[in-house]
Amino acid sequence: MEKELYQTLDDSYQEMVDIRRYLHQYPEISFQEVETPAYIARYHEALGLDVKTGVGGRGVVSTLKGRKPGPTVALRADFDALPIQDEKDVPYKSKVDGALHGCGHDGHTATLLVLAKALSEQAENIAGTIVFIHQHAEEHAPGGAQQMIDDGCLDNVDVIFGNHLWAPDPLGTIQQRSGPFMAATDHFYIDIKGQGGHGAAPHTTRDSIVIGSQMVNTIQTLVSRRVDPLESAVVSIGSFVAENAYNVIAGTASLVGTVRTFKEDIRTQIEQELNDIVTGTAKTMGAEAAFNYERGYAPVVNDDESNRYLASIAETVPGVERVETREPIMAGEDFSAYLKQKKGTFFFTGAAFPDREVNYPHHHPKFDFDERAMLIAAKTLGKAALQYKEKA
Amino acid sequence: MEKELYQTLDDSYQEMVDIRRYLHQYPEISFQEVETPAYIARYHEALGLDVKTGVGGRGVVSTLKGRKPGPTVALRADFDALPIQDEKDVPYKSKVDGALHGCGHDGHTATLLVLAKALSEQAENIAGTIVFIHQHAEEHAPGGAQQMIDDGCLDNVDVIFGNHLWAPDPLGTIQQRSGPFMAATDHFYIDIKGQGGHGAAPHTTRDSIVIGSQMVNTIQTLVSRRVDPLESAVVSIGSFVAENAYNVIAGTASLVGTVRTFKEDIRTQIEQELNDIVTGTAKTMGAEAAFNYERGYAPVVNDDESNRYLASIAETVPGVERVETREPIMAGEDFSAYLKQKKGTFFFTGAAFPDREVNYPHHHPKFDFDERAMLIAAKTLGKAALQYKEKA
Amino acid sequence: MEKELYQTLDDSYQEMVDIRRYLHQYPEISFQEVETPAYIARYHEALGLDVKTGVGGRGVVSTLKGRKPGPTVALRADFDALPIQDEKDVPYKSKVDGALHGCGHDGHTATLLVLAKALSEQAENIAGTIVFIHQHAEEHAPGGAQQMIDDGCLDNVDVIFGNHLWAPDPLGTIQQRSGPFMAATDHFYIDIKGQGGHGAAPHTTRDSIVIGSQMVNTIQTLVSRRVDPLESAVVSIGSFVAENAYNVIAGTASLVGTVRTFKEDIRTQIEQELNDIVTGTAKTMGAEAAFNYERGYAPVVNDDESNRYLASIAETVPGVERVETREPIMAGEDFSAYLKQKKGTFFFTGAAFPDREVNYPHHHPKFDFDERAMLIAAKTLGKAALQYKEKA
Amino acid sequence: MEKELYQTLDDSYQEMVDIRRYLHQYPEISFQEVETPAYIARYHEALGLDVKTGVGGRGVVSTLKGRKPGPTVALRADFDALPIQDEKDVPYKSKVDGALHGCGHDGHTATLLVLAKALSEQAENIAGTIVFIHQHAEEHAPGGAQQMIDDGCLDNVDVIFGNHLWAPDPLGTIQQRSGPFMAATDHFYIDIKGQGGHGAAPHTTRDSIVIGSQMVNTIQTLVSRRVDPLESAVVSIGSFVAENAYNVIAGTASLVGTVRTFKEDIRTQIEQELNDIVTGTAKTMGAEAAFNYERGYAPVVNDDESNRYLASIAETVPGVERVETREPIMAGEDFSAYLKQKKGTFFFTGAAFPDREVNYPHHHPKFDFDERAMLIAAKTLGKAALQYKEKA
Repeated sequence: MEKELYQTLDDSYQEMVDIRRYLHQYPEISFQEVETPAYIARYHEALGLDVKTGVGGRGVVSTLKGRKPGPTVALRADFDALPIQDEKDVPYKSKVDGALHGCGHDGHTATLLVLAKALSEQAENIAGTIVFIHQHAEEHAPGGAQQMIDDGCLDNVDVIFGNHLWAPDPLGTIQQRSGPFMAATDHFYIDIKGQGGHGAAPHTTRDSIVIGSQMVNTIQTLVSRRVDPLESAVVSIGSFVAENAYNVIAGTASLVGTVRTFKEDIRTQIEQELNDIVTGTAKTMGAEAAFNYERGYAPVVNDDESNRYLASIAETVPGVERVETREPIMAGEDFSAYLKQKKGTFFFTGAAFPDREVNYPHHHPKFDFDERAMLIAAKTLGKAALQYKEKA
Repeated sequence: MEKELYQTLDDSYQEMVDIRRYLHQYPEISFQEVETPAYIARYHEALGLDVKTGVGGRGVVSTLKGRKPGPTVALRADFDALPIQDEKDVPYKSKVDGALHGCGHDGHTATLLVLAKALSEQAENIAGTIVFIHQHAEEHAPGGAQQMIDDGCLDNVDVIFGNHLWAPDPLGTIQQRSGPFMAATDHFYIDIKGQGGHGAAPHTTRDSIVIGSQMVNTIQTLVSRRVDPLESAVVSIGSFVAENAYNVIAGTASLVGTVRTFKEDIRTQIEQELNDIVTGTAKTMGAEAAFNYERGYAPVVNDDESNRYLASIAETVPGVERVETREPIMAGEDFSAYLKQKKGTFFFTGAAFPDREVNYPHHHPKFDFDERAMLIAAKTLGKAALQYKEKA
Repeated sequence: MEKELYQTLDDSYQEMVDIRRYLHQYPEISFQEVETPAYIARYHEALGLDVKTGVGGRGVVSTLKGRKPGPTVALRADFDALPIQDEKDVPYKSKVDGALHGCGHDGHTATLLVLAKALSEQAENIAGTIVFIHQHAEEHAPGGAQQMIDDGCLDNVDVIFGNHLWAPDPLGTIQQRSGPFMAATDHFYIDIKGQGGHGAAPHTTRDSIVIGSQMVNTIQTLVSRRVDPLESAVVSIGSFVAENAYNVIAGTASLVGTVRTFKEDIRTQIEQELNDIVTGTAKTMGAEAAFNYERGYAPVVNDDESNRYLASIAETVPGVERVETREPIMAGEDFSAYLKQKKGTFFFTGAAFPDREVNYPHHHPKFDFDERAMLIAAKTLGKAALQYKEKA
Repeated sequence: MEKELYQTLDDSYQEMVDIRRYLHQYPEISFQEVETPAYIARYHEALGLDVKTGVGGRGVVSTLKGRKPGPTVALRADFDALPIQDEKDVPYKSKVDGALHGCGHDGHTATLLVLAKALSEQAENIAGTIVFIHQHAEEHAPGGAQQMIDDGCLDNVDVIFGNHLWAPDPLGTIQQRSGPFMAATDHFYIDIKGQGGHGAAPHTTRDSIVIGSQMVNTIQTLVSRRVDPLESAVVSIGSFVAENAYNVIAGTASLVGTVRTFKEDIRTQIEQELNDIVTGTAKTMGAEAAFNYERGYAPVVNDDESNRYLASIAETVPGVERVETREPIMAGEDFSAYLKQKKGTFFFTGAAFPDREVNYPHHHPKFDFDERAMLIAAKTLGKAALQYKEKA
């Protein structure tokens, strides 16, 4: 069965490239997608599938029912672009000023569309149902995933698979990991309210720069002393702003930072103890501080069974030279939202151009990827969908 | 002799007020004074005195030679205004947008002009020479004093006296102090050059916010541990700026601050040890930091003998109810430049309106002072000049 | 073949217990072992094996040659005790004041001795050579392992296996991990030489407590900012001593701490940057600091192939209910020395009493373990030795 | 009248020296004085004065009533010694092991005794009453002064004078100051109660060394930011003790320090804000801290009028070459207790040996002073007592 699938995909590779390049020229940034979901819907409708649009606002969900009974497998691709100016010099360069498919979601979409076509041709042989989830707004919290889930996209789904084309890793590799795979990405805001005054009269003030500096120092102890050294966590402060004339003592200071974790309990601990440090330090030094912690995406935690299944599938896929267990990465993804509801796994498909010295990283103005990775991803996801057997 | 002087001054009080109010309406800010020195020069010329203009650029120096031999006494008044919008509601409100005599230099000038007139009338009785130094640009480092000195304004001067009309203190008081009276006011700039990066990958960076916070903390030890507790010193950081997105680690941070001291050795020590802390902390944490320390005015250190002389004079002046020894203040004055060259003293003449609940502080948009203080200052400076006998 | 081995071991369980309890009553602490190695040597000699004593000083190495050609497999047990007072109330309580087998090395020894007997009976069937390494002084750096290696105990060895009876984990579990398994355990000494003085005259001093506190704070940034968040590292300061009268400023301060890491590059980075922080902070604050870093045992890094082999063996051993992949632990072991020279793996054999509410941890004065774990360990090590086939 | 006084004192100089040297050989440390007060009482009784013993426990108060009406002037000398081993090589070396008149109180006592004799001879001429207060236990808080006051030693006293022979200053100088003269000397104890644990598992602990270090750093801001830079204050931590094995995380840490101030409001502020920092920092970091602040002697604050009176007297005393205004010193004295109740002043009488290169400081095992200073002190105190006229 997968032979036919692979054949169709191989035969459709040029179509996949054409779709990707078309989308690449007309990127739409998160929560502003209009033409892209319409394009996607038309494609699925042309395949004769059951298509829902406006799912969770802008998402598209298409369903392929096999002729035989079986489990429901969801495959997800995100389709939003980034507010970055394209600086590549290629024929398919973005035609939209200030917008770029700088993370490869155009490739995810092209992969899933052509895979839907190929799987449709196998409908007779399919045992169960395949749901194609085309998601908007992965790049911008709170993200499209939760919106689509709230709108029912996971109803009846048994398992979900997703992949990210990954430009830093070699073409031909699949990188996977059971358990924590991508981080929870939260951020926080600290507003210190001390008491300003003249630089020559510190005793009449509560110096917000001194207070903020104490906070920064104490915050270091969160990772150095409060987190299990066998676990991973990052607390970074990206901004410290208290701007005044040289002879003034700062009445206020604003700090902004990010927290990255892989486990909910550590995430919650850090949120709580950050709050303790911020409010406690301010109070200790006679000032006040407002602390706001905004949770971004939850950590992507792959289900062990689903991941091992996916890895075993990947081992067999033509073009896959190595299936690697990789370290988790500190970046985030709202694929985590699906995994909080359902079994499943998320993996990386290596997409570096083998012959380039520099492969620009994701979100770089010159980001690009080797399109052959789409074919590998399509075969892996496709075979995973075809062969998945729900446990009794 | 001083009776006649006092009489002339009393009779000329209205003129003094008129001059002050005229100047108040036409303020000129530091290093932009044109009409004010011209006005001053005309006044002195009308008295028949020997007048030099453009001294040190914009200053005016007028000389009154007494008929008898004796010492040369200089009296100094500054005449520049501030770049502040006048918010008072008075008939003599500033007519220049964005400029204000917000520190009382109009009063200093009026005082000295009318005093010159009164002393001129006593020329027969004067033993020695009196030099009237009208200085530009006291409010803005590097200040006019040093420029005028470099241009010869202190040549042959034996002693110099100056006063500041002081709105926070009661009318009727003269406040003086031997030794340190006003602070050295320096400022410094710290530019930390760490290594920026992604908020999730601190190990690839040298976090400039963390480094800056360590500096701020260590800098506290300068005053708490390194300065003799019986001496005074302030080190304040007014600005800490490292502004980035929340998920970035700061590659640079800029800090700006001020140092206030009363003694050159402590000033030099702090400059040196600040440099040690800044460069040492940066290096310790794998970064670099540029440190620039800019010396402002030196501390105003009153000569003990001159000050006791002035205080004893003040005790006898009509209108002076109390001569007080006051604590030094942390603000600066370029009168210090004269005192580095010559004996002399600088004092405060109380100028608060007795009947006002609020007397706005110097540099406030609503700053004003009780003009009767000018009369007290004129009598004190005048008598001090008349009676000064140089030690053999 | 393993059936016979298991049978002999089962039949000899009481002997194993007796040996363990005998050794438990006569513990000898690290680098003071005399009777224990003599006892061990006698046992092996009685089996007719080739025995070397005094290996690396106090170790015993016994060799069993199989009748068939094959690889050389080493099995290691350590035999030293701890300087702790036994507080258990059992018939086999330590009879040596201030010495205790508080880590289970008596059990390791009993396991290996009886296993040697059982394997000896299988000599006809054994393809290859089995080397029994009885090591002294595991508890005290620099440890006996390196000494025995230097004395040739690993000559001709192809692979080495070792286990630790592990009281915190359930009887019936085997816990293993490829790669980093136990930490490098280093320690460091900081001696700050400031300038002491009277508590009322800080400016004449270089306050070693303030300097030390700055160091402690900056050291936090090593883990929080300088180590890859996906890696593990601990830097702890256990002692901070600057003891003086309340009205004195400390001229010196002594800090002592430990560093735990799993990778040599991170270990080396921390050593270097600790040195930078200590010497840099002292210098920045006008003092000096001596820094001594003493490397303890290297991290125990299990060879992936050997570990997977061992795990697959353990799955089949009677009494083993679960073979678990465990997180690495931050404690150290000089088994690392063998693994730097040869392939092999080190694992934990669960040894908690199933029916006790409290199982005291290793090094506790009331530490004990369920002796049935010895039988599981013996079978696992024994089968691993019997079946090991060197790769061509 | 003072001529006769001076003559008697000059004639009695050898007696003064003899008394001082006798007392020097038989020092009694604070709160253990028995023979010294008995000796003093006998001397006064021999003069025929009204003597009270056991005042406030161990003090002696003797009263000389003049024949004429007038004010009551108290003169105070302390008589306790220090627990220091005498290391001088002089004939009058201490004969008591571990006790030394290492601060000159023997000299104070000899001065006052012989002065009492000389004043007794002038009783006919004295207008008013002179009270000789011989105080025990100045060196050890809570001090004898308050005890003697509580027992009535200041009843009916109008003014009190006292001096300290001051070895660091030249013989022939009197050093005085209106207002703050000697510091309040308080001390404090911080006991941090964190949570100890293994050095490899920081997340299970609350690291008392890290918490203590944060405290030390934040405490620096008390002086650097919270005290008026024109005022003096010192906060020093003399002890930081958390002693453990290198692989342990400290569960507790103990810090001890001192606070020196000249004004009650700043003293109270520092006590309060120290408490805030200690308890706030501990709480912020998940621990607890006990804070105990023990007030020692209050600051010695000289009454301006009394001090100017004393200074004017001193100007006329034979042997006084200079009356200097000196900076306050950071050491403490319980003469402050008298000055809280009555007008008066405390001054220093220079007592350095003119011909010695090194004059050992007070409390040094080789401390000594030029005994001629006693004569100067006696004349100054004596004349001050004779001429004092209470203001109507």
